[in-house]
Amino acid sequence: MTKTNVNIFIISDSAGETASKLAQASVSQYEDLDITFTHQTFVSEKESLLQALEKAKELNALIIHTLISKEFIAIANDYCQENGLFCMDLLSPLVNEISNRTSIEPKRIAGAVHSLNQEYFNRITAMEFAVKYDDGKDPKGFLDADIVLLGVSRTSKTPLSLFLANKNLKVANLPLVPQASIPKELWEMDPAKIIGLTNNPEILNKIRQERMKAYGLSPDTAYSNIDKIQEELAYAQDLYDKLGCIVINVADLSIEETASIVLDELNLNSHFGVG
Amino acid sequence: MTKTNVNIFIISDSAGETASKLAQASVSQYEDLDITFTHQTFVSEKESLLQALEKAKELNALIIHTLISKEFIAIANDYCQENGLFCMDLLSPLVNEISNRTSIEPKRIAGAVHSLNQEYFNRITAMEFAVKYDDGKDPKGFLDADIVLLGVSRTSKTPLSLFLANKNLKVANLPLVPQASIPKELWEMDPAKIIGLTNNPEILNKIRQERMKAYGLSPDTAYSNIDKIQEELAYAQDLYDKLGCIVINVADLSIEETASIVLDELNLNSHFGVG
Repeated sequence: MTKTNVNIFIISDSAGETASKLAQASVSQYEDLDITFTHQTFVSEKESLLQALEKAKELNALIIHTLISKEFIAIANDYCQENGLFCMDLLSPLVNEISNRTSIEPKRIAGAVHSLNQEYFNRITAMEFAVKYDDGKDPKGFLDADIVLLGVSRTSKTPLSLFLANKNLKVANLPLVPQASIPKELWEMDPAKIIGLTNNPEILNKIRQERMKAYGLSPDTAYSNIDKIQEELAYAQDLYDKLGCIVINVADLSIEETASIVLDELNLNSHFGVG
Repeated sequence: MTKTNVNIFIISDSAGETASKLAQASVSQYEDLDITFTHQTFVSEKESLLQALEKAKELNALIIHTLISKEFIAIANDYCQENGLFCMDLLSPLVNEISNRTSIEPKRIAGAVHSLNQEYFNRITAMEFAVKYDDGKDPKGFLDADIVLLGVSRTSKTPLSLFLANKNLKVANLPLVPQASIPKELWEMDPAKIIGLTNNPEILNKIRQERMKAYGLSPDTAYSNIDKIQEELAYAQDLYDKLGCIVINVADLSIEETASIVLDELNLNSHFGVG
């Protein structure tokens, strides 16, 4: 049996990120699905909108749009209704409800969420901060950081730092290696801002073996040795105890899940998803 | 007049990222709105779902949910209907339509989009790649990169690299400074993978002046001098011409917009939003 093909059209007068996220989340609920995505983003001309709609009709595609222009919304919704196309107008329900409640009119500016405002520049600063103070490169950054992540190799410090940076948080991270000296800044800072990451030794063993293979080396090195890993983790836990910091075991957690726990622990959840 | 307060509840059995994105995009269409967000994420118990719904009712909140469990969806939707609460069930329309068309049942696994599969690990690899090969740190990375970004200081190379990494693309970047030597790897790689970033001199002048002020220095340094900037930009353009690479002027573009153009130019748009 051949796979069933489903066409999904993302149409937006901005980057279409919200619609893409929704499509991703929905599609991930299926296996053996042959999905074709088409993105018609930054739509600013009526003609390109109509072309996209006609193309979608030809393919009997599912349409998800995040149009904000009143004219474009009407064109898309009317076209889909007249032609019996599946259409999700993502922004209208919430925007209309907010306006009804508050009697404030929406600006209807495409891409307002990406407007080059102070928050946007703060986010860029946070991303640059994460890169600059990744991997213990400069412990002086700890004192300016909102969060400092500690962990032995392969406890997802770097991707977690970047993910949190996207929430406008300044994050530095330090890899823990037994015998290496601990930067004095770690003892000078508020331990409530420190997160100690840990993992199960078996999982680290597997991840590190894979990493060695990817480098074309034998999987069984000192780096991936389970006794060595246990020693590293014990060393890390001992440091976490001394610092009195929060500890999170990232085994089986995705970056998104770990980030959510970090934000909960630090009571920064007002940042989460709205940064 | 006091600001009108609107409460928005994000409820999810996963991280709630899709609902957060939608709320962000909608709220950004308003000024002078006093929004309170509440996140009830990773809901795994009926009790915590009911508690969240009751709290939302007390506050007459707008509810956006991305629940995938059939039981939880029914509880949330029924509760909202019975109590006259505004409720957006984000996943159901698309998931139901896909199932109707394909006769395939959804897995209904919370957080399937974050499952620790190969694609997830590829994304982590891409993020680590971006950090490792940021700022010209190691030009050997150019030969393994999907994209190499070039640009003078403050043309958003770092955040753009990280944003593209989130789409599973391996991105390296190189700051351009007249007189500095150009790494030989740049001439050895496929110029179709190189993107030259540029900006308007007036904008760079303003950004760099702000940066100097942030460092507590005089805004008028050689770094922010307009003649100096024009010289740098001319040098960059000359290099782009020699390489025959794509050039993007990032003036007035957000990172998301620039990323969208990069993906279009490189015909990588199937990655976009679904990576």
